[in-house]
Amino acid sequence: MGINARFVFKERPQSGALGLRSVLLGEPEGSQVLVKIHSASICGTDLHVYKWNAWAARTYQPPFRLGHEFGGTVVAVGPGVTDIKPGDHVTAETHISCGNCHQCRLNRRHTCDNLQLFSHLGLGCFSDHTLVPAAALRTIPHDIPLDHLTMMEPLGIAVRAVTDASVAGAQVLVLGCGPIGLFAIAAARAYGAASVIATDLSPYRLQLAEQLGANAVINPERESLATTTADVMIETAGSEAAFVDALMHVRKGGRVIFASLPDTSFAIDITQHVVLREITISGVYGRRIDETWIQVERLLRTHGSALARLLTHRFPLQDFDAAFALAASREAGKIVLVPN
Amino acid sequence: MGINARFVFKERPQSGALGLRSVLLGEPEGSQVLVKIHSASICGTDLHVYKWNAWAARTYQPPFRLGHEFGGTVVAVGPGVTDIKPGDHVTAETHISCGNCHQCRLNRRHTCDNLQLFSHLGLGCFSDHTLVPAAALRTIPHDIPLDHLTMMEPLGIAVRAVTDASVAGAQVLVLGCGPIGLFAIAAARAYGAASVIATDLSPYRLQLAEQLGANAVINPERESLATTTADVMIETAGSEAAFVDALMHVRKGGRVIFASLPDTSFAIDITQHVVLREITISGVYGRRIDETWIQVERLLRTHGSALARLLTHRFPLQDFDAAFALAASREAGKIVLVPN
Amino acid sequence: MGINARFVFKERPQSGALGLRSVLLGEPEGSQVLVKIHSASICGTDLHVYKWNAWAARTYQPPFRLGHEFGGTVVAVGPGVTDIKPGDHVTAETHISCGNCHQCRLNRRHTCDNLQLFSHLGLGCFSDHTLVPAAALRTIPHDIPLDHLTMMEPLGIAVRAVTDASVAGAQVLVLGCGPIGLFAIAAARAYGAASVIATDLSPYRLQLAEQLGANAVINPERESLATTTADVMIETAGSEAAFVDALMHVRKGGRVIFASLPDTSFAIDITQHVVLREITISGVYGRRIDETWIQVERLLRTHGSALARLLTHRFPLQDFDAAFALAASREAGKIVLVPN
Amino acid sequence: MGINARFVFKERPQSGALGLRSVLLGEPEGSQVLVKIHSASICGTDLHVYKWNAWAARTYQPPFRLGHEFGGTVVAVGPGVTDIKPGDHVTAETHISCGNCHQCRLNRRHTCDNLQLFSHLGLGCFSDHTLVPAAALRTIPHDIPLDHLTMMEPLGIAVRAVTDASVAGAQVLVLGCGPIGLFAIAAARAYGAASVIATDLSPYRLQLAEQLGANAVINPERESLATTTADVMIETAGSEAAFVDALMHVRKGGRVIFASLPDTSFAIDITQHVVLREITISGVYGRRIDETWIQVERLLRTHGSALARLLTHRFPLQDFDAAFALAASREAGKIVLVPN
Repeated sequence: MGINARFVFKERPQSGALGLRSVLLGEPEGSQVLVKIHSASICGTDLHVYKWNAWAARTYQPPFRLGHEFGGTVVAVGPGVTDIKPGDHVTAETHISCGNCHQCRLNRRHTCDNLQLFSHLGLGCFSDHTLVPAAALRTIPHDIPLDHLTMMEPLGIAVRAVTDASVAGAQVLVLGCGPIGLFAIAAARAYGAASVIATDLSPYRLQLAEQLGANAVINPERESLATTTADVMIETAGSEAAFVDALMHVRKGGRVIFASLPDTSFAIDITQHVVLREITISGVYGRRIDETWIQVERLLRTHGSALARLLTHRFPLQDFDAAFALAASREAGKIVLVPN
Repeated sequence: MGINARFVFKERPQSGALGLRSVLLGEPEGSQVLVKIHSASICGTDLHVYKWNAWAARTYQPPFRLGHEFGGTVVAVGPGVTDIKPGDHVTAETHISCGNCHQCRLNRRHTCDNLQLFSHLGLGCFSDHTLVPAAALRTIPHDIPLDHLTMMEPLGIAVRAVTDASVAGAQVLVLGCGPIGLFAIAAARAYGAASVIATDLSPYRLQLAEQLGANAVINPERESLATTTADVMIETAGSEAAFVDALMHVRKGGRVIFASLPDTSFAIDITQHVVLREITISGVYGRRIDETWIQVERLLRTHGSALARLLTHRFPLQDFDAAFALAASREAGKIVLVPN
Repeated sequence: MGINARFVFKERPQSGALGLRSVLLGEPEGSQVLVKIHSASICGTDLHVYKWNAWAARTYQPPFRLGHEFGGTVVAVGPGVTDIKPGDHVTAETHISCGNCHQCRLNRRHTCDNLQLFSHLGLGCFSDHTLVPAAALRTIPHDIPLDHLTMMEPLGIAVRAVTDASVAGAQVLVLGCGPIGLFAIAAARAYGAASVIATDLSPYRLQLAEQLGANAVINPERESLATTTADVMIETAGSEAAFVDALMHVRKGGRVIFASLPDTSFAIDITQHVVLREITISGVYGRRIDETWIQVERLLRTHGSALARLLTHRFPLQDFDAAFALAASREAGKIVLVPN
Repeated sequence: MGINARFVFKERPQSGALGLRSVLLGEPEGSQVLVKIHSASICGTDLHVYKWNAWAARTYQPPFRLGHEFGGTVVAVGPGVTDIKPGDHVTAETHISCGNCHQCRLNRRHTCDNLQLFSHLGLGCFSDHTLVPAAALRTIPHDIPLDHLTMMEPLGIAVRAVTDASVAGAQVLVLGCGPIGLFAIAAARAYGAASVIATDLSPYRLQLAEQLGANAVINPERESLATTTADVMIETAGSEAAFVDALMHVRKGGRVIFASLPDTSFAIDITQHVVLREITISGVYGRRIDETWIQVERLLRTHGSALARLLTHRFPLQDFDAAFALAASREAGKIVLVPN
């Protein structure tokens, strides 16, 4: 039996080089789950693969299937799966933890010492169906629109950052208006930030930032942060110059959350920035499992349609090339691929 | 009337150049308090003044009186002083806050936007008597030995660092065994650290570290941190190379507290250190006013004699030159000057 | 010179017995501030005085002037006042702390061991002008409508309760829809509660609760809490039966904040409620000075007009009797008295 | 094959009625683990079973095997066990969680909605061998003396209570000097309490309290708490009168942790105790899984021999009747049964 599924593949180790292939998916075995994809979205790491940067070359071996952000419906489950059943709406938590290491025992499963990444397994979700390990799936109640599920994983990073930052009543500065930054803007407003100022170089993205709730937006190429003072800064851009400049605008005792993965080291003036001004800098690598998932589900219930403004473009699955080209242009929010 | 007091002066803008001068101190006016010095200790910033580095040259104008760490007894108070009286045992909190700025309103008075520093006023305490603004004084109950009071201000920095780090049950790594590092070792053990590993280049200081409770000591010139894993790191050394190396030994989700003031920027690999490993880095500039003072007083009650091991040398006031020379050699803990 | 001001007085130790009297207010002396009242509101404790219950009889000695919630403009300041000037918009923080006791040293000034209460000084604000100690005043920027200032003190209690409860993403249950409960509903929504369920016996107040953002309202005389599950409960009603019933609906690990002052002890099943379900119960007596004030100011900036829906009725000062009668009926939100 | 093991049984539903029986234990199946018992200790709940109180009658159906606190060595494991192997030193975490419920997803596995209790399964450990589900076992490194493992589960409750209370630099009041109270005294001192005052009616236990580190002990039948002021109170006695009296001695803003399971409701004056004095009351039901286990292991490493003073009596397994009689007398610390 099985299902013939079409998948977007990274075909060769070079820029671009995507293609659509048909794969015969067998019945789910063990703890596998067969999911019918409703929609899937392009992540920043998918773009690294598309452009085939150094990180992608280190991490993957073409050909392999692309994608890990999706929403879908369970078709069938393997014999070892007890808590997921056909008909369930599901999305994926990329981080699969071991449950036994020191980090897992500390309930920090997202930094498990033996972490497996769904996104590194090459199983893919830019397709009509896919097979996913049950441990990577989260079942989402049907009152959340199926269309919103593909947002949950990246939204979770933003929610984690905003939660760690404690934004209720705070003046928040968000550096960078890619999807994580944009979700952080919306989450900060939802959780009671007194104000959110956002920066980016793209006018398109700054406009999106305003639609998602930013009180003010700044293009650092054209204007300075001037008199901005923030209690909290959320960094999603990865630029050293922008970061160091912005750090001067964080109030004494303020908090800085990194949710980007810069390519180079940052020169930080420990004395001026960290000690004399008692700044706290911390990093967010993943969603807290499963506290963040519970928060994300609830946030979608109260602010789902506002957050969905970030899903700016939809392409049929076969137009994957146009979708990736647009994603690479930065003139978009989240781009969604829809199988048909 | 008044008192003829002898003070150690920084005489000229050059290395060394200390001298003893007699100053006629009048009756305390306004909110001044006249204190008879029991003992005073040499701080790292006094050493900067002694050596006349760039920071000292920017901050001070010789001649001026030196010193701000002391314990003493109140002799007389100005007419505006209501909560301090003759006979009280006192020591100084260097940071004098305004009470009205945003930081003060947030109960972060140690980072007051209009902060005055007792240590920058040139009033001095390497003397037999001195006049101090009441706002800089803390009254300490008589059950704390008068001899221990000169430790309270620097000990407070270490207690603040250890408190921010939450060391109960934690494996702690202390970089640098100067007075702040040594106090941090003792405070970490007192507050239930599972273990404390300390690093320094000076064999003398590493021996002191063991006396103050370090479970293991490491001289980074001779051995590596090897298999060390820490939940918490307290940085008091200010060396970029040592810091970056040590950062690899802090566990995922760990906390790093800076209590040093490095001269240069540190190149920090945000991706590897801060984000992927979810490290939190924060700075400690001062004692929490007055939570930290309450903690320090209590810590002296339970661990006073152990902490006093750090007071390794005592000099009569007139031997200030020998005292500063020893302090500069790093072959000492805290050095105490005693008027006679 | 001076100003002839009209004040609402509690005339005699019995229910009602209010009257309007003229008082000659002299020039402000020492740290006094003369304030022109823009508007003032009736607090629950004013109602206790109106009805002359046991607490009022213990606390006050008629005749005295009533009221402590107001917004106004500074007319003149005493010679000891440095940080307030004529033209400033002001409102009062009832709690005046000493600054020196253990609680103040812990930055818990709202529970100062030597607390003075503006509301117990009988200085009053149901008037056209009044004299207030500078220590009880807070200066509010002019971008906050003067009309909103009389909300700040009671709103501060609700903001403190909601802040202590950490409501971002939480399901919140508010018991009681008096002004504190209603403000708590609005603050909980502003700070990102996933949902707010509110209870009260008055249909009028339940309607107000919905206007202020409650997702559902329950009249416990007519319906049970049924399947309600809350992460957080904020108690503002003071009823033992309602509390004990509601406690069963707080999730394991949940938080209960008391912002009411019940007349009697509550029988709490420590084993079932507190230990087996690991519930945390805590009390809120006052605003954190001044963290809560900063939050309230910012909340008025983002949600001021929504919060102002709670100011349901306005009376000219001379109609104080009608205003108090309405307040006693519970068929109102906050009632405002406006001098003319 | 299998092993003939001797077990202490509760034979009949009445006070006493213990007996020794031989049981043939088969090879471990599924996720079972066969453990050779090194030593086991009597818990308060074992005493309830011994005395056959109402709770025991509701919970158990004789005959069944007694005991759940033990240390031992793994003999053999079932085919489904992957992370435990013969030779491992093990002890039991009574709480077995499902991993899927809302509480588990919040990393509150000790209050799992589908909690299974090893101690309610009637599997027993007052024996020479026993079969335990792997999910209830914790593997403990061999550098912790095998003799100390039977302390870990009850010590974990005390460590959790002390951790929740944040005792570094705090004045701590412990009500009740049963095993949990005594462990809490030792843990509070280890984690840097400024002082610990302990209360109990038994002179024997008060003496033990002093040996475990209490700075002062009080027998409430003979003396009052007088001038005691505590920042933190840990309740392990379950007496309403003692609790309500003690509550007056907790400082404003203080924390109260319940680690007892009182039989009756407590009348708490919400206004005086909880609101006006801003006290926080919370309950501790279990160890945090596995944060508390990590802490306990580390505490045994640094303070193991001091904590072992609480193991006051050892009986050979066959003297179970004498052991239980002594436990019921309250003239003992922890009582250990040793198979031979």
